Amino acid sequence: MIDKGLIESENAAREDALRADYEALGDHLDRRGMDIGRVRDKVAAYGVAIPSWGVGTGGTRFARFPGPGEPRGIFDKLDDCGVIHQMTCATPSVSLHIPWDKAPAADLNAKAEEVGLGFDAMNSNTFQDHVGDPRSYKFGSLSHVDSSTRAQAIEHNLECIDIGKSIGSTALTVWIGDGSNFPGQTDFTRQFDRYLDAMKQVYAGLPDDWRLFTEHKIYEPAFYSTVVQDWGTNYLIAQELGEKAQCLVDLGHHAPTVNIEMIVARLIRFGKLGGFHFNDSKYGDDDLDTGSIDPFRLFLVFNELVEAEDRPGFAPAHMLDQSHNVTDPMESLMMSASEVRRAYAQALLVDRAALRGFQGDNDALMAAQTLKAAFRTDVEPILAMARMEAGGAIDPVAAFRASGYRAKVAAERAAVTGAGGGIV
Amino acid sequence: MIDKGLIESENAAREDALRADYEALGDHLDRRGMDIGRVRDKVAAYGVAIPSWGVGTGGTRFARFPGPGEPRGIFDKLDDCGVIHQMTCATPSVSLHIPWDKAPAADLNAKAEEVGLGFDAMNSNTFQDHVGDPRSYKFGSLSHVDSSTRAQAIEHNLECIDIGKSIGSTALTVWIGDGSNFPGQTDFTRQFDRYLDAMKQVYAGLPDDWRLFTEHKIYEPAFYSTVVQDWGTNYLIAQELGEKAQCLVDLGHHAPTVNIEMIVARLIRFGKLGGFHFNDSKYGDDDLDTGSIDPFRLFLVFNELVEAEDRPGFAPAHMLDQSHNVTDPMESLMMSASEVRRAYAQALLVDRAALRGFQGDNDALMAAQTLKAAFRTDVEPILAMARMEAGGAIDPVAAFRASGYRAKVAAERAAVTGAGGGIV
Amino acid sequence: MIDKGLIESENAAREDALRADYEALGDHLDRRGMDIGRVRDKVAAYGVAIPSWGVGTGGTRFARFPGPGEPRGIFDKLDDCGVIHQMTCATPSVSLHIPWDKAPAADLNAKAEEVGLGFDAMNSNTFQDHVGDPRSYKFGSLSHVDSSTRAQAIEHNLECIDIGKSIGSTALTVWIGDGSNFPGQTDFTRQFDRYLDAMKQVYAGLPDDWRLFTEHKIYEPAFYSTVVQDWGTNYLIAQELGEKAQCLVDLGHHAPTVNIEMIVARLIRFGKLGGFHFNDSKYGDDDLDTGSIDPFRLFLVFNELVEAEDRPGFAPAHMLDQSHNVTDPMESLMMSASEVRRAYAQALLVDRAALRGFQGDNDALMAAQTLKAAFRTDVEPILAMARMEAGGAIDPVAAFRASGYRAKVAAERAAVTGAGGGIV
Amino acid sequence: MIDKGLIESENAAREDALRADYEALGDHLDRRGMDIGRVRDKVAAYGVAIPSWGVGTGGTRFARFPGPGEPRGIFDKLDDCGVIHQMTCATPSVSLHIPWDKAPAADLNAKAEEVGLGFDAMNSNTFQDHVGDPRSYKFGSLSHVDSSTRAQAIEHNLECIDIGKSIGSTALTVWIGDGSNFPGQTDFTRQFDRYLDAMKQVYAGLPDDWRLFTEHKIYEPAFYSTVVQDWGTNYLIAQELGEKAQCLVDLGHHAPTVNIEMIVARLIRFGKLGGFHFNDSKYGDDDLDTGSIDPFRLFLVFNELVEAEDRPGFAPAHMLDQSHNVTDPMESLMMSASEVRRAYAQALLVDRAALRGFQGDNDALMAAQTLKAAFRTDVEPILAMARMEAGGAIDPVAAFRASGYRAKVAAERAAVTGAGGGIV
Repeated sequence: MIDKGLIESENAAREDALRADYEALGDHLDRRGMDIGRVRDKVAAYGVAIPSWGVGTGGTRFARFPGPGEPRGIFDKLDDCGVIHQMTCATPSVSLHIPWDKAPAADLNAKAEEVGLGFDAMNSNTFQDHVGDPRSYKFGSLSHVDSSTRAQAIEHNLECIDIGKSIGSTALTVWIGDGSNFPGQTDFTRQFDRYLDAMKQVYAGLPDDWRLFTEHKIYEPAFYSTVVQDWGTNYLIAQELGEKAQCLVDLGHHAPTVNIEMIVARLIRFGKLGGFHFNDSKYGDDDLDTGSIDPFRLFLVFNELVEAEDRPGFAPAHMLDQSHNVTDPMESLMMSASEVRRAYAQALLVDRAALRGFQGDNDALMAAQTLKAAFRTDVEPILAMARMEAGGAIDPVAAFRASGYRAKVAAERAAVTGAGGGIV
Repeated sequence: MIDKGLIESENAAREDALRADYEALGDHLDRRGMDIGRVRDKVAAYGVAIPSWGVGTGGTRFARFPGPGEPRGIFDKLDDCGVIHQMTCATPSVSLHIPWDKAPAADLNAKAEEVGLGFDAMNSNTFQDHVGDPRSYKFGSLSHVDSSTRAQAIEHNLECIDIGKSIGSTALTVWIGDGSNFPGQTDFTRQFDRYLDAMKQVYAGLPDDWRLFTEHKIYEPAFYSTVVQDWGTNYLIAQELGEKAQCLVDLGHHAPTVNIEMIVARLIRFGKLGGFHFNDSKYGDDDLDTGSIDPFRLFLVFNELVEAEDRPGFAPAHMLDQSHNVTDPMESLMMSASEVRRAYAQALLVDRAALRGFQGDNDALMAAQTLKAAFRTDVEPILAMARMEAGGAIDPVAAFRASGYRAKVAAERAAVTGAGGGIV
Repeated sequence: MIDKGLIESENAAREDALRADYEALGDHLDRRGMDIGRVRDKVAAYGVAIPSWGVGTGGTRFARFPGPGEPRGIFDKLDDCGVIHQMTCATPSVSLHIPWDKAPAADLNAKAEEVGLGFDAMNSNTFQDHVGDPRSYKFGSLSHVDSSTRAQAIEHNLECIDIGKSIGSTALTVWIGDGSNFPGQTDFTRQFDRYLDAMKQVYAGLPDDWRLFTEHKIYEPAFYSTVVQDWGTNYLIAQELGEKAQCLVDLGHHAPTVNIEMIVARLIRFGKLGGFHFNDSKYGDDDLDTGSIDPFRLFLVFNELVEAEDRPGFAPAHMLDQSHNVTDPMESLMMSASEVRRAYAQALLVDRAALRGFQGDNDALMAAQTLKAAFRTDVEPILAMARMEAGGAIDPVAAFRASGYRAKVAAERAAVTGAGGGIV
Repeated sequence: MIDKGLIESENAAREDALRADYEALGDHLDRRGMDIGRVRDKVAAYGVAIPSWGVGTGGTRFARFPGPGEPRGIFDKLDDCGVIHQMTCATPSVSLHIPWDKAPAADLNAKAEEVGLGFDAMNSNTFQDHVGDPRSYKFGSLSHVDSSTRAQAIEHNLECIDIGKSIGSTALTVWIGDGSNFPGQTDFTRQFDRYLDAMKQVYAGLPDDWRLFTEHKIYEPAFYSTVVQDWGTNYLIAQELGEKAQCLVDLGHHAPTVNIEMIVARLIRFGKLGGFHFNDSKYGDDDLDTGSIDPFRLFLVFNELVEAEDRPGFAPAHMLDQSHNVTDPMESLMMSASEVRRAYAQALLVDRAALRGFQGDNDALMAAQTLKAAFRTDVEPILAMARMEAGGAIDPVAAFRASGYRAKVAAERAAVTGAGGGIV
């Protein structure tokens, strides 16, 4: 962990400017009839989970270019996640991926306590072959034509639940790469029925207080068809499985031009929004840093979430899921946690009464302006104040760089080489 | 109608070549273990409906360039449709669009009998304002914020059912343009709930032996959000409404790169495939002639349909829905009816036992080749033989041109001018 | 025109808040080492042209829903444009479209002077048939297979130049819809050669101090191929024609996911960026209000423009080109002019020295943050101050609504009905 | 190599059926005024190059699932390529990738002669780090901000030329992954200028009788911007470099919905079409088997090539470039070579005089039908006859399977494991 004194001295150099900006924004919002303190408090209470694999450098099918100090295993990853949370106070939990992060529960719990983190949803992996497994997932896993391969995949998911129970997780996220690369390779319907049947067996092993998140994706690694290809299929799955099953929305898993915020609204309406994998993308499942390509779209998603905040039982899970190929992964995760909070803060600034009025009058221009007015408000002082007041850094990346953490772990951790990304 | 002698003389000039081609294909299929006669009979029994508006020249928002002899009203349209069916023997019914085609039921029925046609699904129109209506659909129809506008739209749909009952139709197709052009313009969920509420009132007016088809479309005329934007929403609607409600798939109403045949399979699996609007497209809802851009995709859709043929109650409605901007609409419809039958014939040639075997063995290459072998079979002799044996033309376009029909109606019908397309 | 007293009283109610916001922003920028006054001055000097057709309500191929007080002709349009400029002080010129706006030059010049406007680029129209023209553009115009049709289209463009000369315009924009709807309909190369040959004849008629802008578009109204389909073809045209020919970039005329700001950079690098048609889009050429869908993309385009500001001879033309289907067109144009200025102001706030440094260090994260820091600065006080100081309205839409202008012209102008949009 | 007797016995079982099909097709074409022998001869003379890396199993960033008998190095790869050519007689040359295929020239030449192959274009690799290289390509190669990294990349390309000279190659293909993942990460123009400068140094090292192919790609591995992102930039590069520089078109490297055949036509028109990387795709750069997703698009590309066959100096290079993730790579390459020849044969069947006539008459329907008539002709008998007459297999995959080659090499070659694909 980073020395508190370092954070304090870094903050000291920025506090006056922050207070000036915060005060000015408070005055401005006051003129708009809004209370800056309320927004700051809601932002401060908001957290987003970090995927354990996110602290390693990602790659593409062409290459992976590791950086210095790559984590050697789950305990290094938890160290890195702890520092991210220390700096941002916005990432209180970590989402594990099995088998990558397999370790004794006691050790995991002890480390988590040490670095001040909890455990979020468990992630199973049947898109890669595991050492020692008798069956290959080359042609599918939960939807494979061979029942013993399906059984192996089901067993793996049940094991993920078991591990999760031992570390306080209460959700399982299932993303599979099953699909096909050629027209004709699979029978769409039989394949889907095999998937449903297998998932029912996983669902049967779910504790009562758990949720099961299924994640759709239009393509990759399958390039002609994917079993869980869109939210329509994802909804049908959640409906078939039962109340504890909900849909997970990854912002990069949709066809070009699709209106994602509307999908979010539909899933909310029908009680099946399980949560998010946040990231950004321009072409395919690019897994870029959240808010880096289309920040307005991220805001529009949060606009739906704030709109739905008062719905009974509404509690979607929030997680980052990015591939950091050219940045320090810890820095990208710090900034991305900020971006998610930024979108949330902006959405909280929407004048909803005015919006409702303009919508009722078909005043499209003023309705749109009502959203834009909230979006263009620079809420950085709110985010920074929430961090500072919680003991984090006003400028997380600057403080992190000043701390020398990366150089320190680079010296301690042997270089990790090799190709292959591994980011869902 | 066109003189039978003309068709016969046109056929006479082509019959020898056809018989040679047909015999050679029969021999070839025999070597592949397939019976050409069985395929021909199934093709001959297959019909696709024509949309009444399809016989007029379509256009874009920029311009419409009418051709000679444009139909002046529904009775001219029925004449044109009758000739298309006479030439192709593949288009036994017409789908009316209200209010465009409003006319006394007795006259409609008499004309239909005269030209040898029946009536397919009724189409309502709440994407345009109707002369005399007190309310405008500028800001929506069945999902409008104003209840009296919704009531007017409901009433219009109920009227379409009434008209349909009087002419033997048994289905209503509802496509609306409702949506928004700006983020914030509408509340996605409230708008959808208004739509559902209105549709329930339409559904309540549906006779027991009718079906209700709802049609999704990703965008246009709304350019930010559309109420019924994709098959996921469409499925939810059909589920909410009841058993008589099913989803209609227009091939051009999807996001780029979306796997349409998989959507077809999903809707079949869950009993909600109502039918099709056939056309082709490269960019958006281009409404080009069926099979003109991606004939293999059309084949893959029919592959799903043939796969599902034996499901109890499986009876999707088939209709063309195209905008003929640069061709003679009648010729385009003749060719498109052929293209639909072609895809059907090719799909019938898939060796399904072999395919099932390759799928079970994860032999992706041979599974794909099994589809490709069927697709690349030139089934034109089968289509032509089916037409000829039914009294139609071996070469419908050639016979149509030889008939002088277009010149004749051009002389009779005053030129129709003006902008605007009007193709769903 | 709107009474100055009305503007003043509207401003009076908002001036204190504006001055407080402006001062706070000035202080904040000062802390970032930036001078708010410099940005305000550059913004104040920036203008964007209005397309004459933009003040009428647009539509789609399905319908057009006119609003009250639609302009009846070019003189009404100029009145509306004058009011937009009066409110925003950001739209000093109007771009005419021939033949829609044909009128005696003296009358045009007098009216323009009366309303305080100049004339921007001329727009020819060969995507519609003109009353009285012997040849139809149904199958093309400047690339038509028939030489007399091409000659008619050339002649029309030369006439546009002539009209432009008489009213002080110095540029011609040529956008054509020529292309094809079917594979095989045209020969790509012969069609392109005919286009090049025709354009050379237009170019030959261009005065020395004029520029010729050609505009590319991936599709619509042609749905399989378009002669000038992308910037690659557009560049080749400009290169073939000569120094006065440059490429015009419409933000909605690209394939999905294309990086538009990079195209802008390439055209700048090779001296061929002629200018812009600003708008926004989510799916196709949606022609939505500028900045309404993806404001960050607009900022990234302006980031390239500011980067290039000091290049010798760099002077791209800026014009709005939108279809206002559900808003008051005048209000949309006011807001869109603001959005363009907003993106410009944000781009001026990029710390370019820091950016260059991060780029040199491959510090992707901080380089990206440098852009984001500029983008998220709320520059509204700068825009409002620039307007107020120039005699415009702090809140143009509010002042416009308070003025009662729309009701006044609605009373004076007979309702315009009918279908068809007509927005490039 | 596979025993000739095996091929002969496999052919013997299929020859009668082939001759019957061939004769029937010949009769049919004769009725259409076409000579089957002419098409067969042109097809027989047509060859497509195999990429050396194509005989290994590909993968995605998520996983790679190797098959049995993976080649252990370039000499195994050449063995596999030799067998593919033996079966198909359609793949006379292999394209090497450096450093993957580095080996003594004498050994390469000897092996090539042994298996009956020549060497096609050389491929450089600066999208991965090479063992022993001092500089990393993490942040770019030929466009890197650091001149020593650029120098290393230039040097590598010059080495590829040297190797190529020693084995009879006459072309260098340069594809780089350079670009950026974040707005701001790079300066588009400076980066492009660095690239141009580096490429000029590579071009300077090109022998007089060589060609330099640059390959564009819209995205991946860079996810925000790519230096050579489209054919427009690719054309500018070829123009800047000189006569020996031409553009290489990979069918999967374009934005969604882009009309690729038109790009081919434009590059032909301006003398800059260098050649192709054939494959197929539905979403991104899926690298699926050629013709497996959209065979009509492949035909339309070949339609342009046949149209241009008589242009002086027209000699584009043809190469497959696919990632075989779920099939036996050798089988996929055999089928893909057939698909390319199939599209060529179909394009040769286009009645060009009739097409020209319909185009001149704006008879869009008949022009389109002229292409479709050629496309739907089942030319398999022509392809099979060309193979058989050249000593290859009527059914290459069946013969290959019968040969037991895969099992034999699986026994000889130690299993290759590991992640990462490596397919351009």
